[in-house]
Order: sequence, then structure tokens, then C-alpha cells
Amino acid sequence: MSDVKKVVLAYSGGLDTSVIVKWLQETYDCEVVTFTADIGQGEEVEPARAKAQALGVKEIHIEDLREEFVRDYVYPMFRANTLYEGEYLLGTSIARPLIARRLIEIADQTGADAISHGATGKGNDQVRFELGAYALKPGVKVIAPWREWDLNSREKLMAYCQQHDIPVDFSSKKKSPYSMDANLLHISYEGGILEDPWAEAEEEMWRWSVSPEAAPDTPTYIELTFDQGDIVAIDGVPMKPHEVLEKLNTLGGDNGIGRLDIVENRYVGMKSRGCYETPGGTIMLRAHRAIESLTLDREEAHLKDELMPRYAEVIYNGYWWSPERRMLQAAIDETQKNVSGVVRMKLYKGSATVAGRKSDASLFDESIATFEDDAGAYDQKDAEGFIKLNALRLRIAAGKGRRQD
Amino acid sequence: MSDVKKVVLAYSGGLDTSVIVKWLQETYDCEVVTFTADIGQGEEVEPARAKAQALGVKEIHIEDLREEFVRDYVYPMFRANTLYEGEYLLGTSIARPLIARRLIEIADQTGADAISHGATGKGNDQVRFELGAYALKPGVKVIAPWREWDLNSREKLMAYCQQHDIPVDFSSKKKSPYSMDANLLHISYEGGILEDPWAEAEEEMWRWSVSPEAAPDTPTYIELTFDQGDIVAIDGVPMKPHEVLEKLNTLGGDNGIGRLDIVENRYVGMKSRGCYETPGGTIMLRAHRAIESLTLDREEAHLKDELMPRYAEVIYNGYWWSPERRMLQAAIDETQKNVSGVVRMKLYKGSATVAGRKSDASLFDESIATFEDDAGAYDQKDAEGFIKLNALRLRIAAGKGRRQD
Amino acid sequence: MSDVKKVVLAYSGGLDTSVIVKWLQETYDCEVVTFTADIGQGEEVEPARAKAQALGVKEIHIEDLREEFVRDYVYPMFRANTLYEGEYLLGTSIARPLIARRLIEIADQTGADAISHGATGKGNDQVRFELGAYALKPGVKVIAPWREWDLNSREKLMAYCQQHDIPVDFSSKKKSPYSMDANLLHISYEGGILEDPWAEAEEEMWRWSVSPEAAPDTPTYIELTFDQGDIVAIDGVPMKPHEVLEKLNTLGGDNGIGRLDIVENRYVGMKSRGCYETPGGTIMLRAHRAIESLTLDREEAHLKDELMPRYAEVIYNGYWWSPERRMLQAAIDETQKNVSGVVRMKLYKGSATVAGRKSDASLFDESIATFEDDAGAYDQKDAEGFIKLNALRLRIAAGKGRRQD
Amino acid sequence: MSDVKKVVLAYSGGLDTSVIVKWLQETYDCEVVTFTADIGQGEEVEPARAKAQALGVKEIHIEDLREEFVRDYVYPMFRANTLYEGEYLLGTSIARPLIARRLIEIADQTGADAISHGATGKGNDQVRFELGAYALKPGVKVIAPWREWDLNSREKLMAYCQQHDIPVDFSSKKKSPYSMDANLLHISYEGGILEDPWAEAEEEMWRWSVSPEAAPDTPTYIELTFDQGDIVAIDGVPMKPHEVLEKLNTLGGDNGIGRLDIVENRYVGMKSRGCYETPGGTIMLRAHRAIESLTLDREEAHLKDELMPRYAEVIYNGYWWSPERRMLQAAIDETQKNVSGVVRMKLYKGSATVAGRKSDASLFDESIATFEDDAGAYDQKDAEGFIKLNALRLRIAAGKGRRQD
Repeated sequence: MSDVKKVVLAYSGGLDTSVIVKWLQETYDCEVVTFTADIGQGEEVEPARAKAQALGVKEIHIEDLREEFVRDYVYPMFRANTLYEGEYLLGTSIARPLIARRLIEIADQTGADAISHGATGKGNDQVRFELGAYALKPGVKVIAPWREWDLNSREKLMAYCQQHDIPVDFSSKKKSPYSMDANLLHISYEGGILEDPWAEAEEEMWRWSVSPEAAPDTPTYIELTFDQGDIVAIDGVPMKPHEVLEKLNTLGGDNGIGRLDIVENRYVGMKSRGCYETPGGTIMLRAHRAIESLTLDREEAHLKDELMPRYAEVIYNGYWWSPERRMLQAAIDETQKNVSGVVRMKLYKGSATVAGRKSDASLFDESIATFEDDAGAYDQKDAEGFIKLNALRLRIAAGKGRRQD
Repeated sequence: MSDVKKVVLAYSGGLDTSVIVKWLQETYDCEVVTFTADIGQGEEVEPARAKAQALGVKEIHIEDLREEFVRDYVYPMFRANTLYEGEYLLGTSIARPLIARRLIEIADQTGADAISHGATGKGNDQVRFELGAYALKPGVKVIAPWREWDLNSREKLMAYCQQHDIPVDFSSKKKSPYSMDANLLHISYEGGILEDPWAEAEEEMWRWSVSPEAAPDTPTYIELTFDQGDIVAIDGVPMKPHEVLEKLNTLGGDNGIGRLDIVENRYVGMKSRGCYETPGGTIMLRAHRAIESLTLDREEAHLKDELMPRYAEVIYNGYWWSPERRMLQAAIDETQKNVSGVVRMKLYKGSATVAGRKSDASLFDESIATFEDDAGAYDQKDAEGFIKLNALRLRIAAGKGRRQD
Repeated sequence: MSDVKKVVLAYSGGLDTSVIVKWLQETYDCEVVTFTADIGQGEEVEPARAKAQALGVKEIHIEDLREEFVRDYVYPMFRANTLYEGEYLLGTSIARPLIARRLIEIADQTGADAISHGATGKGNDQVRFELGAYALKPGVKVIAPWREWDLNSREKLMAYCQQHDIPVDFSSKKKSPYSMDANLLHISYEGGILEDPWAEAEEEMWRWSVSPEAAPDTPTYIELTFDQGDIVAIDGVPMKPHEVLEKLNTLGGDNGIGRLDIVENRYVGMKSRGCYETPGGTIMLRAHRAIESLTLDREEAHLKDELMPRYAEVIYNGYWWSPERRMLQAAIDETQKNVSGVVRMKLYKGSATVAGRKSDASLFDESIATFEDDAGAYDQKDAEGFIKLNALRLRIAAGKGRRQD
Repeated sequence: MSDVKKVVLAYSGGLDTSVIVKWLQETYDCEVVTFTADIGQGEEVEPARAKAQALGVKEIHIEDLREEFVRDYVYPMFRANTLYEGEYLLGTSIARPLIARRLIEIADQTGADAISHGATGKGNDQVRFELGAYALKPGVKVIAPWREWDLNSREKLMAYCQQHDIPVDFSSKKKSPYSMDANLLHISYEGGILEDPWAEAEEEMWRWSVSPEAAPDTPTYIELTFDQGDIVAIDGVPMKPHEVLEKLNTLGGDNGIGRLDIVENRYVGMKSRGCYETPGGTIMLRAHRAIESLTLDREEAHLKDELMPRYAEVIYNGYWWSPERRMLQAAIDETQKNVSGVVRMKLYKGSATVAGRKSDASLFDESIATFEDDAGAYDQKDAEGFIKLNALRLRIAAGKGRRQD
């Protein structure tokens, strides 16, 4: 049916991608290489080895990418205070470029001519995987089984498993009614009752955080140390990026922080409803804005804010590996040289609020801002000329009869 | 000293503006007209009449502008999901254009040739008042006593009062260490210990909200009905805009919602630290985004997000009465025709979260978004072409040796 | 093969779309309705009637849409000073929405369930036609023969004609080596030697303009009268929009104005090289900027300039019938209320330059701008405060050791 | 009167700045250091030495800054295709940051505590000089005589000269009625009859270019070699940046290229009418766009276009030495790595048009773009899915009754 000889599959070890292994072997009569990464999804990746072996896979790649994931993807994104559609912290989106990159690198190493993934034809993830793959290896063949096969129901999948002796592990935890995805930055939920935007998510759905109601009755305070836009220590203890995020996830989850319930616009053209838990990221975003508020110049801060929605869209849509992302990143990173200092955060029953911020690179000048005598640091009379000339164009227009209301 | 004959003063009835009345009479040998407005600051405005009379003022204007304020200023601004520097809801900024407009209208009615206000030379408010005034009446003379006089300390002010028999009301509440400003949208605090950005605000500073810790242990749910971008009913009860905001302030304040502590960049060039309570506005913003998430097209939503920081800057800097604000407003209002429906909010210990949203104008299409069988509503195979052509420029570039990482 | 019963075809009367008539009848066993519009392409449309009849078409729609085209599409676009990629005046792009709309309206009138067009699968026009069609009639079936059939060479097309008795008119003008498209705004050329971006276009390719070298040795001066952003008269003679454009095309073409040779980025992901003649449009753009320079406020002018590339992209990509276009149009139109006056243009050997502009709504204030004594209209001392406060953030940063170079 | 001890003056050697030397010495009782730079204004700078000496100046700085000017200011600006208000090439604006920088560096070297310049209080140049000075040396004192003294007419200046024995050179060329400014990028004209925007500039005003009418009757072709966004050779001859610009000024001027007549919006709030000759810059801009059209990715090109008006405004307003300019520059420069190749330009009677472009880094793919058989390089069927999914949001909206017109 095809000239595919070897395909690298993003393999989770779960049922769906196990079916895909078999389906690829059968449909394309090709060798399958599996790639399984720990990006902090909270499940063991090593069991994927035996499962892949049982499916006849010879080249099995299992990697711990947590450090790289947070250092090279999550942290750069947070420098921009990135939010998609004003609210979503892009937890799923930001993990895809790394997976795409490793798929391509493994394809190059193993001499594979194709890659494959388990994302459906309705979602954003197929786009993100494939745009990344094409950008990094333009001639690669991409196989997206969900767009090709006819196993489009749970029943057909099960029948396929039975038919091909793929072990279905019914004993593990009860099948969740939700489609979920997790990594160090977040866990997401879609489907089930969430398909009705009026329905409130059930408490038992959430996995990473307690409810605000169940969180401790006393607040937790922490101090986050920033260096050039990135958090490098918590309460004075230096940590690697992924250690920071793991710690903040725990702290945030314990305090009911980071739940989000939104309707979002997918790149493929439909609206979808999703729930997300991003405990650490929610704290990081707020803290990053706080340290920037002290250390960024006004105009660069405003320009960053104007560019941010575009940058978020670029990442959401899957264009991490693109010239426009690099262009925006260059602008963003240029601003972060002085974004260093300490932010004190209060975590309490669902809220992460700023309790204080300080920096050696602070541009806050108490001697000028003070309501008390400033000893001549600021000449209030300057304001008159400032206002007069800023008003000049409006005065001329009004003088010529233009209505301003 | 001058040719000013009559000046309209934005008069609060407090000490500072009472001194200004006298100072204007003396310095400019002119008649002073006072203008005092109820914009929801939470203090009686009628007492300002007797105070003004005692100072010899003959033309005294006292007005209830709450409805106009929310309907014509707050509501249009919220259609844009407006946040300055990512966090500030512009509570002070949005009240100034209305005051400026009324000052000018009263000047026109009373034949005054000048206006005056009590804002200092370091802040944004002088700019907002004066840009508005010049835009609406280009030849008006503006008198800003704080930029002119030498009464630049509390002691000098007190001495001036004593000297001129201006009654100083020591019996009222203890002088707050903070510079405050309030209207229906928010109350703000500056100065005092807030001048140290590392210092956490004291609990006793906050006036409109209980602390999250002190808020009820059970959540409050409310339903907000939107019509064309504006809230028109709470829990099904139709209300005028200012009634909506008053109600939401109560509900939010009771649940510890709307406290904000930031360092912001003033238009006059310095950073300042401010604390704000915006209980109702915080709920409104979140709810408005939720109803938009169902009813706005993706591209108009994204374009709105890109324009929002500029729109916020325009208002913060005092350019409400400007062609650029009207231009942006035209774009924003164009998008709100279908922003109608109901949002269910959960209020709990400092957090206002979305629990559900529904709309007759919803663009959420469950039959397409579903994870279940969609009966052909969406052809997954379309995604392949979509991705291939979106990737084409990247594939060509990579094929010609461009690195994408 | 299909359940298409009746299809409305955008029919030019030329060979390709004649083949499509027959191919649709055969392939879909359906009735074909032809739609042929005069949008100023410079060829008679009436002959299309006999050709369609000869092909067995019963419902033939032939319309003169020139006035509507310029009034409702070209003029609104020019209010934004629209250029795609800094140079292209969007002559092809702007005609597509009108065609799409009429196709859909005729489909509604005639009870057709499908539309069809002769655009290829590599270009932008298929996108523009189809996005428009889907936006206006979401359930419409679109048939794009070039993406379906195998007649992908001239030889196969000719064979098909012979086979189906489609008359091929060899006697008319020699087949051009270029793919061309024309309407009142422009004529475009692609293909042939233009596929080499290093090759200069041949002089004989250009059809609407003389070469600058061949243009008159003396300049032509004209005066264009604007009303609210649109040209309403030439040399004082009132004209309808399409009459204005026809006249300017003649004047421009006679003076060698409006030739453009670019490499552009198509929405489908490839670069293509195109040559365009837009004589009238080139004059209009320059003149519109000139009248705006007198009558627009600075900030609205700058905001327009920032939004323009996005607006151009929206139109180029085919999203005229979209919420984002309407949103941008609302902002643009809001600015044009005072864009009225007269611009004097000099046309000479390829250049359209501004020789003068005047307006009753001018914001140019000679008494302020003058280098002579301004009698106090502007107080130069105001500039000091203006500069000081604008510099404040930079001074604070430098004072704290930030390098500014 | 002051505590200024030593001031560095931007000294042209002309009458006005000679008066300023004397006025500074008298008014501030301070030592004056003169700084005169050759930035390509086309006049000898060495004569300024004797004139300064005659005025008693001891520290005289005369420098040739042409190379630095073009390399470090003009070239970076042209990478962005910078135009202010759609037309102005920023010839004056871009020279000011260099002058400001040298003034400050000389102040540091000579121990001066102040700087001074001859720009008036109505223009942009005062702002540009002073913002630069404050950004580079926040505590510097700036003296702007035109805002301070009362010599606000030619008569008073002349009287001052006579009174102070300042030699007035009447024998040189007749006093121009225009206020002019020149450097390697352009020469500007303001004032005189130009104060009437309806009046066409007189032919004799223009100094750097012949009129299009007087230009040669045959075109001149040149080839410009770009390396990473910058022109490095003309017709294959490697040149330094300032040599490139000098050569292009000659070529452009000889062919009547680069005249511009506009009404622009000054930062200080008024409109002004200016005429400019930018022969080389006009060619450079067009050629740079042409090489970018081959070598830039679509999305980075579009993003550049969207950012350009802001970048132009930043420079026009005088914020070269600012964080926002550096941020934008970082984004722009990131895109220029592959902007290399050759552009062939045709210069003829006022027009600089692109005749061809080629590049080893070209992203133009003839095998894909071709109208001929592409041997499968592009699958036209991909377009269907591309269009379908891009239309999805519009189809859903239309299906739910939203009007798209």
C-alpha cells in the first residue's frame, strides 16, 4: 500500500497508541519505532517498554525530557506572560514542539522515513505535531491514523484489540469520561459533560488540585527569585526549571490554585470547551508580571503586551518552529535582561496574589513617586508643558469645530 | 494677576478642594463655581453645598452621575475586556472623562472661562482632566493649584486654613495614611507604606471587601445576563448599569473579590505602587470574557485582544475624548452585536470563576466539537490539506536549508 | 456520481470556463447556470450569452457590476490606504467577494445547490471565492474543477474541446503567454517568463499603460475632490465611483503610471511573481494619503497605518465576508468623516506626485506651524516640560545604570 | 545666573549657532565647547574651526561621522523598510541620535555639565536631541536657547550680531527662504511658501535632484548586492555603507528620484509641511523590499510590516536610545539573516523600479509556483481541506444565522 519503511510513533503505552503500533505494522507493512517521553505527565514511562516489545517493536526510545521541556519551552513562553484568549496558559500547546522535534531527531537517527501520532483530526495537536515535523524535516511522511482508519468508536477499537491480541488493561483505574492530557505545566480535560458549556465541571474530575473549599484555611507565603525573566529559586533555594515547576505545582495544587474552565477557539475552526489545571504556571505568570512591573520600562512593557496575543496564537496554532516565533522571541528576550529580583506570593484557597516585589534592577524610584516632599526630584511645573503639547492636536481639532464626543 | 473671571472647580467638599476655593478667589480674584458629583464614591455629596456656601460660592452644582458614569463610560470600556498592564481595571481613569465633560459643560452654562481641579502635578489625573477639557473646549484656561502654589505640605495647608478660617473637620474619621480615590467601579490606595513595593498592604487598609480569609465558607452563585456586551440583569432581575455594578460590588466585596496590588507605569514617566478594590468590575470582566467565548468569532476575538492594550493605554493616559478612542470603540462595539446570553459565576473567598455560560447566539457547535460520532459534520480528512498548505512555507524554507530552531 | 442538481458557474465565456460548463454537465449530470459580470475587465460580456446557449445553458445571468464593484468594494478598501506586502494594491483580491456574493445570490434565486469557478488549486482565488461562498451560504456545495479533473494541461483541454464540440476561437488574438486577470482596478500578469524573478517583464506584456519612456513629455495636472474619504469629482466634475476609476485609469495609463512587478506570498503558502497595472488606483492611493495628511488626527492616522497590513492580509486571503473585516472597516470608516477636500496631482512619466492639497476640514494650522512670529499661538516653553516628562522614564533607567545603547 | 560651567554645543558654523556661542558665554558665564560633525550635509565642516576660534572657543571638536552615521543608524533603520506616515524616510530623525550621543560623549570627555543645540521650540529636533541626551546622561543640563531667549526674529538676531561683533557673511549665497537640513540620507525644506499646503514647491527649491523632466531620456540600470539586509556592493563593486549611499544619491539625483512633498504630524502636536529629497534612500527602500520579497518568510514579512509604523514613530519621536527601539530592532534584525542577494533597479525620470531580483537564499520555488506541470510538488487537492477548515468558523456562524454582510 505504501513505500513507508520505518515510522517513528509518539507512543504513550496506552490503548490507543498500542492499537496504532499494530495498525501501522499491518497497514503500511513497516517497522515501527516507538518514542515515549516523560514530560511530567505523572505516569511512569518505563512500562511502555514492555508493552512496545510485546507488540514486536525493536527500537524503543524512552526519555526523560522534563528538564529540557521546562527550560527550553515553558520558560521562554512565560517570559511573554503568554495567555491564549486572555486565559489559557497553553499547557498542551507548549509540549508539542518538543515531541515533534524528538520524533524527527529519532527518525533521522534510525533512518525512518515517516512519523506518526495519536492525535485526532479535529484537534489542534495534529496541527502542532505536523507543522513542527514539516518545519524540521520537510520531506517527512506523516501518518495520522485517526484521519485514515475507520476505528472511529470505542467499540471498533476494542474489537481491533481482541482481533490482534492487544492486551486491554481493564483492571487499572476506571476509564475516565474525559479526554485528558498532562505534562509538567498542566493537565487538561475535554469531552464528557464538558461538551455542554453550561454544565459546571464535577469536583471529582480535577486531579492535580484540591478545591479552593478544601484548601488550607491559612495562606502559604513563598518567595520566588527571578534571574533575567526566569525563576531560579524558591524561598532562596536554587532549583532547575523543572524542579521549580514541580514544586510550584505542589504548592499551587495544595492551595486550590490554577483551575480554569473555558471555551476556546481551535485553529481548525471550531469552539471547544476545556478544563485545565495549571497550578505552578498560574503562580509563575502572576509573579513574572510582578517582577516585570518593577524592572521593565513602560514602553517595552506595553509593546510586550501588544505582541503577546500574537505570540500566544503562534504557539497555540503550532508554529513554535517558525520564523515568526523566533522573531517575537527575539523581541521578548531582549526585554528580559533586567527582569531579576524577588517576588513574594500569597497562596490561599484558589488565589495566587502578589504580596511584595523587590529588585536591584528596580526602576521604581521612591524619591520621585513619593507623596511627600521629593526634594526637587520632579518638577511639577513640567507637567503643564507636557499636557499642553499632548493636548495640542486635540485643541487644534476642537478649535476647528471637530466634535470630540 | 490674571484675566480669569470665573472658574469651575471640581469640588469634593474635602479639605484640599476647600483650600483651593479660597486660594482661587484670592489668587485670581475670580468667582468660583463648584461642581460636586456623586459617581458612587460612597460619600454624601449634599454636605458639599453648605461647605461651598460657607466659602462664599454662589453657583453650586451637585449632581448624581452614577447612571451616566456606568452606562456611558464603564460599560463601553468593559466591552473591550480592558486591563492596563495586564491587571489594572482602570477604575480611576474611567471616571475622569465624565468629570472633565461636566466641568466644561458647566463652564459653558455659567459663562466661566476657566476650570480647576485638585490633582497633583505628579499624577495621571491632572493629565486626564486637562486633556479632556482642552479637547472639549480648546480655549479654556486650566488652573492646577498643586502645580502653582507653595502649599506643598500638610502643615502649610493647615496654616492656610487657619489663616483663612476654613473649617478643618478633625472630628470625622482619623486621617488615612493613604491617598484614596473612589467611584462606583473601584477604590484606590496610594502612598503611606505602599511606597515600599516589598511591603504587603495592611488588612485594615482595604475598605470595600472583606479579606478572602474572612469571606463566607460557602460559595455564592449568580447568573449574569448579557445583552450586546452589557450586563442587563442579575439572577434574572433586570437592572440599570449602575445598579448592576452596585450589586456586584456588594456581592464581590462580601466574598473577598477584587483586591489588586500592583506597581504601574504612570503617563508622566514614573512607576507608582497602588492598591485597588474593584469587586464588581472583577466579576464583570471575567463574565464578559465567558460570554464572548461562546459568541465571538475567533478572529474578531483575537483582534480585540491585540487592540486591547492600546485601548487601555489610551484611556489610562487620558485620551477618552480623542479620535483614536472613538476609532477603537467603533471596532469594539462592532463586535458586540451578538454578545448576549447568560453566565453563571461562582464567588468564593477571593475568586470569581465561571461555572457555566449559554447563549442563543452561541457559536459553540456541540455536533462538531464532540468526541463522539459527529455524523459527518466535520470531515477529518480536511485537516490533512489544511496542515499541508499551512506547512508549505515552512517546508519550502527547510528544503532550502533554513534552520527552524 | 453526486447529488448536485444545479450549479451556478462563474463564467467568463472563455475556453476554460466553457470546458467547465460541459465538464460539470457530464460529470455531475446537473444543470449549469452561468453568471458573467462586467466588472471592468475591458471585454464585452454579452458574447458570453451565445456561447453559454451553445453549451446548452438555459439560465444565463449577465450583469454590469462596475458601479457596485467600485462603490462597495474598491472605495472602502482605499479608505485604509491598503497595500499588501507594502506594494500590491489588491486588484484581484477585491473583485472576488463581489463575485462570490452574486454566485450565492443567483444560487438562491435559481434554487441551485452548488457553485463552481475556474480558479486553480494553487492560487488565492479559489480561497477567496470559496470562503465568500461558505460565509454567505454555509451549506453550499463548491465544485472546483481544476482540483478535481485531470485536464491539467493545455493539450488535454484542447482534446476535451474537440471531443465535446466546444468551439475554440483561434482567430482572436494570439494566446498570451501570461495568465491574466482584469477588472476596473487592475490587470494582472503571471506565468511565462515572469516565473523567473530575475527576468524583467517585456514591454509588450503591459496592456493598460504606456511605458514611462513613451509617456508625454509634459506633465498632466488634475484635481481630485474627496468627500468623506472617497473621490467624488475630477477637476470639479462630479462622477460616480466607477466613472472616477475609469477616468483615472485612462489618465494614469496615458502617463505610464501604475506598473508594479513583485514577488508576493500567497495564502496557500508559496511565493509567486506577478506584474500589475493599476493606473487609477495608484493615483487614488497617493491622493488619499495626501487629503488624509491634512484632515486626519495624528493618532488615528498612526493607528490606521498599524492596522492596514492586517486589513490588507484579511482581504488578500479572502476574508472580506468576515467579522474581522467588518470590525476593521468600522474602525477605518469612523476616521473618514472629515477626510474631505481637494488634492492636486501631477502625473508624469510613471509618477503620480502630490502638488497641493486643501480642505475646509484641514487640521493644518499655519498660525501655529509658522517659522515666523506666531503671536503666542504656541508657547515654546511648553516643550521643555513635554520633553522632561517624556524623558523621565529614560532618565530614571539611566540613573540606575541601565545602558541605552 | 546659573551653575553651568561648561557646555557642549552642536555647532554648524552658521549664523544661528554662532550667536548661540556668544549668548551662552554671556548668559551662563560658562565655557563653550563646540562640536561640528560631517554627516554628509554637503558643506565643509573645517571652516567652523576658525569661526569658533574667533568666538573665543578653546575646545573645538570637528569630526567626520559619515561612515558611522550610515552603518549604525541609517542601515539598521532601512532593514525595517521604515516610513513615517506611509511616506517619509526619516532623513532628519535618524541623524539626531548620533549627534546626541557625540554631544554626551564629548561632555564626558571635556567635563562639561551641559549641552546645547540650535533647534527651535516648535520642532521635533529639540525632542530628539534632548531625549537622547537624557537617556545617555540622565543628569545632564540641556540648554535650548530658542526656548529661552528673546531673539525670536531675524532682526533681533542681526542686532545681536552687530552688538557682539559676530561676523555675518552676506556675501555667501543668497539667504534661502526655506529652513533646510541635510545629511547623507536627505535634505529637507520647510517654511516659506511651503507653509501653504496647496502651493506647489518651486523647481528652484530642490538642490539634490534634477526634476524628472530634466532627467535623462534613457533609463539607468544598476545592481545592488545585499548581505543580511544591508547593501554591500553596487554593480558588483564592494563599498562601505556611506559610500553606497553617496553613490546612490548621485545616481538617484541624476534621475530625478527621491523628491517628496508631504504634510506630516509632528510629535509636539502640530501638522507641518515639508519637502524632502532622499534619492539614495528611495532606491534603497524599494530594493530592500525586493530582496526581502524573495528571502523572507511570509509571516515574518507581515509581522515586520505591522511593526514598522510603530518603529517609525519611535524614531520620528526621538526614542532611538530607548528600550522599545532596541526591542523592535532585535525583532527586525532577527529576520535579516537570509536577506542576501542581488536586486536590479531601473532608474528613470523620477522612478526607481525593480527590474529583477535573485538570491541564493530565495524561498521562491519555481517548481511549485509554476503554471505548468509541477510533477507533484504541490497537491491541488490539499487546497480543499485548507479552505474547508479555514471556512469552518464562518460556516458555523452563517449556519446559526449570523449575517456576514
